[in-house]
Amino acid sequence: MSTIALLTDFGHQDSYVGVMKGVMAGIAPNAQTIDLTHGIPPQDLHAAAFALLTSYKFFPKDTIFCCVVDPGVGGDRLAVAARLESQNSGPFYIVCPDNGLLTPVLHELPAAAAVTLDNPIYHLGQTSATFHGRDIFAPVAAHLAAGHALAKLGSKLEPGALIQLDWPQAERLEDGWRAKVVYIDSFGNLVTNLKGAALEPPLRNWQIDVRETHLETVSRTFSDVVRGAPLAYVGSSGFLEVALRQGNAHRELRVDIGETVLVKRRND
Amino acid sequence: MSTIALLTDFGHQDSYVGVMKGVMAGIAPNAQTIDLTHGIPPQDLHAAAFALLTSYKFFPKDTIFCCVVDPGVGGDRLAVAARLESQNSGPFYIVCPDNGLLTPVLHELPAAAAVTLDNPIYHLGQTSATFHGRDIFAPVAAHLAAGHALAKLGSKLEPGALIQLDWPQAERLEDGWRAKVVYIDSFGNLVTNLKGAALEPPLRNWQIDVRETHLETVSRTFSDVVRGAPLAYVGSSGFLEVALRQGNAHRELRVDIGETVLVKRRND
Amino acid sequence: MSTIALLTDFGHQDSYVGVMKGVMAGIAPNAQTIDLTHGIPPQDLHAAAFALLTSYKFFPKDTIFCCVVDPGVGGDRLAVAARLESQNSGPFYIVCPDNGLLTPVLHELPAAAAVTLDNPIYHLGQTSATFHGRDIFAPVAAHLAAGHALAKLGSKLEPGALIQLDWPQAERLEDGWRAKVVYIDSFGNLVTNLKGAALEPPLRNWQIDVRETHLETVSRTFSDVVRGAPLAYVGSSGFLEVALRQGNAHRELRVDIGETVLVKRRND
Repeated sequence: MSTIALLTDFGHQDSYVGVMKGVMAGIAPNAQTIDLTHGIPPQDLHAAAFALLTSYKFFPKDTIFCCVVDPGVGGDRLAVAARLESQNSGPFYIVCPDNGLLTPVLHELPAAAAVTLDNPIYHLGQTSATFHGRDIFAPVAAHLAAGHALAKLGSKLEPGALIQLDWPQAERLEDGWRAKVVYIDSFGNLVTNLKGAALEPPLRNWQIDVRETHLETVSRTFSDVVRGAPLAYVGSSGFLEVALRQGNAHRELRVDIGETVLVKRRND
Repeated sequence: MSTIALLTDFGHQDSYVGVMKGVMAGIAPNAQTIDLTHGIPPQDLHAAAFALLTSYKFFPKDTIFCCVVDPGVGGDRLAVAARLESQNSGPFYIVCPDNGLLTPVLHELPAAAAVTLDNPIYHLGQTSATFHGRDIFAPVAAHLAAGHALAKLGSKLEPGALIQLDWPQAERLEDGWRAKVVYIDSFGNLVTNLKGAALEPPLRNWQIDVRETHLETVSRTFSDVVRGAPLAYVGSSGFLEVALRQGNAHRELRVDIGETVLVKRRND
Repeated sequence: MSTIALLTDFGHQDSYVGVMKGVMAGIAPNAQTIDLTHGIPPQDLHAAAFALLTSYKFFPKDTIFCCVVDPGVGGDRLAVAARLESQNSGPFYIVCPDNGLLTPVLHELPAAAAVTLDNPIYHLGQTSATFHGRDIFAPVAAHLAAGHALAKLGSKLEPGALIQLDWPQAERLEDGWRAKVVYIDSFGNLVTNLKGAALEPPLRNWQIDVRETHLETVSRTFSDVVRGAPLAYVGSSGFLEVALRQGNAHRELRVDIGETVLVKRRND
């Protein structure tokens, strides 16, 4: 059974996601559809790219990620599909507008093959100018799930030609790193762009500053601090995060996306 | 494999939808359940009717739409099921309270058959007075998915006897149409009740007025205008819509449901 | 086909639930996953316990409830799995942190068996300190769904040793009950901790007081009162509820969780 993972900014109020699933059920009735998330802020490519980056490893091999965050729908941006090969989790597919959404994944894994979705046989009969999720991306993902080869979906595209976002990297300093908050989850936890693996152990030797909050150390988990206290830790996504135990760091520390997080070695 | 599409106003906070799916999994373990949407505003029959109208065509034949927006639950409104026949997408079923929710679908397609859900064999053992979604509609939809015939679910009902909502039509004017905003999606796009097909081509010859916004033409898609600018276009549902490119027309143009949209031929 | 029901406080903005499903799809590709709810307020164990209590009966036998509301993640709380036996709905499983989430279910049904999830063979390769939903609870639930025995998942645990919450019971008075609002659903309906079955019939002989609202009787359903009027009724969960017909009792009667509801026999 094939797995299709859906990532969109369509939210849960409208029937847009439901309609995409209806289209897919008609083409690939035996595929399993998983909602990766539909809670990406409208047209926020960076949030979409981050969600994909921190999720793809956890899906079975051959999963088809159908990602529709698409500010340029109906314009001249391409629609694309790519096959990537992960040494750990095997091959997988991404079907999406060519707008940079897979930039950070491509930093981890080169695309093995890519196509432009220009073969209308694999689209819905009549393609609207405003809902390619329904008319192009859902049917193409379902045809892949039903066993059609990537190469049949359209013209070959050089993977290096895929559009890339400007993806902010944490900046190396003499005695540490200048990171940025790149994602805030619904608990208000602040996720930075600094990989925990970049911090030379032991973690307790690193101190953190974000806005008016100073943390003397990197903790292991929430229960290392008292209720309501702030902490830094390497989150489940592998990136350094700042949170409040049983609180909302976004609101209570008044920190937003883009805020600088200074990570420095402590001189004891 | 049968497909059941769920449409409710239950939202995502509570376990109401999950419980309906639990009931269905017990009766039709091989059916595939798709959330069409649970984001209908509480008890808003017009929004539910519109969501069903713009979605049903995209589901595989024999899909069972289980629609529960039910202000009259426990009162004397009937519970019904109907079979409809679409020339394009084949037969499908709707299971719902008899409160007009399928009015605009019936304007497109006559019901081929209908029943009142008065056979308790197909309900949960004990029926509550407040949650027929769980106790009647979910089990009936699942029994249909498991292969039971419509006629066994209850007494035959003349399709013409199904309750109909007062469904607002766009009004023909001498030089155009007076339409209404009937739905606002989560991007803030304003969907009217005027079908794009009603506008004699070319679309660029029609001008639009809504509140203080004047649009000289109907566009094809978002990227036809600059970022932040308003546009009118025939949306993916087939109806005329007004939106802001990468903005929220509902908030920024201060337009709500019920607002008049004047569509007039331009005299060049 | 096995059913896994998911109950979390992860909401729908982030990809946390999607990632859990990705993990499960890799281990138990034929299991059916049902979202019971992800709308539990962050870290609210009482709301989670109530959602499970009012839902479990409606799922097929052998359902695996994977419940992740986990303020103590990464600390010294245990991760557990239990098998329960319901005379009506058959055996089922709960996989969760040992924090009391299953307290009210255990008041209805004793656990037949329990284990501590200390066998790492059934976890993801590397376990994070902050996302046991992904790393422990999802894979364990999926291994159960794939047919692995409870006893293999870890060390045997005496069911009586499972942590229990302080679960508020309605208080018996001479002429009635002092109940509490323990849950408010997304319609604003106020759910109390008083079982309808505790009220000697006929229901119309009981009067209700909550804050400034006095109700002369317990009704059967919404349509027993006029639009906008308050009513009390035995809800679909079996507990006494107070609502407004086609209104929001939480907002309009200004009643919150914890509010006292007095239920007294009327002296006619």
